[in-house]
Amino acid sequence: MRILASNDDGIHARGMRILVGCLTALGDVFIVAPDRQRSATGLSITMHRPLRVKKVKIPGFKVTGWAVDGTPADCIKLAIEDLLEGPPDLVVSGINLGPNLGNDILYSGTVSAAIEGAINGFPALAVSLASYSSEDYSGASIFLKNFLPVLAKGGLRPGTLLNINVPATERPCGVKITRLGSRRYVNIFEKRVDPRGRLYYWLAGEPVEPEDGAVETDVEAVKNNYISITPLQLDLTDYKAFDWLKHLTEAEKLL
Amino acid sequence: MRILASNDDGIHARGMRILVGCLTALGDVFIVAPDRQRSATGLSITMHRPLRVKKVKIPGFKVTGWAVDGTPADCIKLAIEDLLEGPPDLVVSGINLGPNLGNDILYSGTVSAAIEGAINGFPALAVSLASYSSEDYSGASIFLKNFLPVLAKGGLRPGTLLNINVPATERPCGVKITRLGSRRYVNIFEKRVDPRGRLYYWLAGEPVEPEDGAVETDVEAVKNNYISITPLQLDLTDYKAFDWLKHLTEAEKLL
Repeated sequence: MRILASNDDGIHARGMRILVGCLTALGDVFIVAPDRQRSATGLSITMHRPLRVKKVKIPGFKVTGWAVDGTPADCIKLAIEDLLEGPPDLVVSGINLGPNLGNDILYSGTVSAAIEGAINGFPALAVSLASYSSEDYSGASIFLKNFLPVLAKGGLRPGTLLNINVPATERPCGVKITRLGSRRYVNIFEKRVDPRGRLYYWLAGEPVEPEDGAVETDVEAVKNNYISITPLQLDLTDYKAFDWLKHLTEAEKLL
Repeated sequence: MRILASNDDGIHARGMRILVGCLTALGDVFIVAPDRQRSATGLSITMHRPLRVKKVKIPGFKVTGWAVDGTPADCIKLAIEDLLEGPPDLVVSGINLGPNLGNDILYSGTVSAAIEGAINGFPALAVSLASYSSEDYSGASIFLKNFLPVLAKGGLRPGTLLNINVPATERPCGVKITRLGSRRYVNIFEKRVDPRGRLYYWLAGEPVEPEDGAVETDVEAVKNNYISITPLQLDLTDYKAFDWLKHLTEAEKLL
């Protein structure tokens, strides 16, 4: 099996080494990842300047990596188009330091690398450690080593796109299949004054605790110390809105 | 009515002036947009550096704009959190020079500004001119001036999120309510050698003509010279995959 690994914390992030450690038993691993921290870049791609690629060794592993001075989505595109000789069987992005839950996934470079894999027709996973403070990847590592062979046996097809969040503990309570919840923030920007007396804004924000009714969501699962697996699909069409839109527009002169 | 306008081509883009011209009859317009071209930034947000904001006049209009040195999503967040005194009734992003169709919408800064509006609970539209070569905004302008009052009367509710693409002609054939199609590209990267003999990559890519069976899609509508309106929603959960995932995981030792 050929596995393409990427992330958004950069190729030298600890989460990448942990991930590679989980993947090498499964097959040939190819790493194509940003050369630096590229968090919150969403599915951003680089169109207005060229991209550079540099071969990188990952300490402790024989796999070769390519560091790209672009976004996670750039990395996946470049890997598939040029760097890998032949298509991957699986794309895995992570392990991100920090949760990627609810509607936040659209901001996430980690999830976007998996989305880019899925857009290109490959099964893809995004894996995140649901903590900013602890770097305990032990539960995530045990889970991935068990789950990936199961998935390889029964679940790798085009369109398989999973967003996985693992609590930062050696012993999560279990695994839940979840839907995307909602993440809301307060105090989104800090407004400050620079040394020259000019105003600037810095994105901050604290997540608001989810409402109690949000059952079966990724947010709730992780809060209760479960591993969350959310299956994703990329057709954002709101089919339920077709009828009212047709009704709204059909009798009107719009042109 | 209070309307927040943004885009990804930058506050000084011609498409912004055309858009403002369509919006001023409807209510009070507030422009918060990137200070420069920020195409293909997706839902990227700026976390690792501060943001600066500058007041800008739009020639020919009395409305005030704020130019932000961030992404379209940053602009919408800042507008709602700080710059606008009170919430908008509608967020409109565009008019983008170039189509935003099918799965490409996830790369689009234009669409992402509307998505950011919707995430924050406001009705939102993204409007794109489905051409790179012609800058004929006349059909788009006529359509928006007719459609926006219709929408204001019957369709502005939280969760209203529309992706609109208009052919670059004075006389589109009509309006179609569509689903997202598929956009595939060939020759994605150009591989070149720089003046110092080192390799670099530049994202290029030509869209492949859609397969014939793709009826009722945005891609097909625009190809046939129709205005396309695609209603969007942001829950990417793949509910159809729940059962097989539960089946796949329930009998396995994963922890």
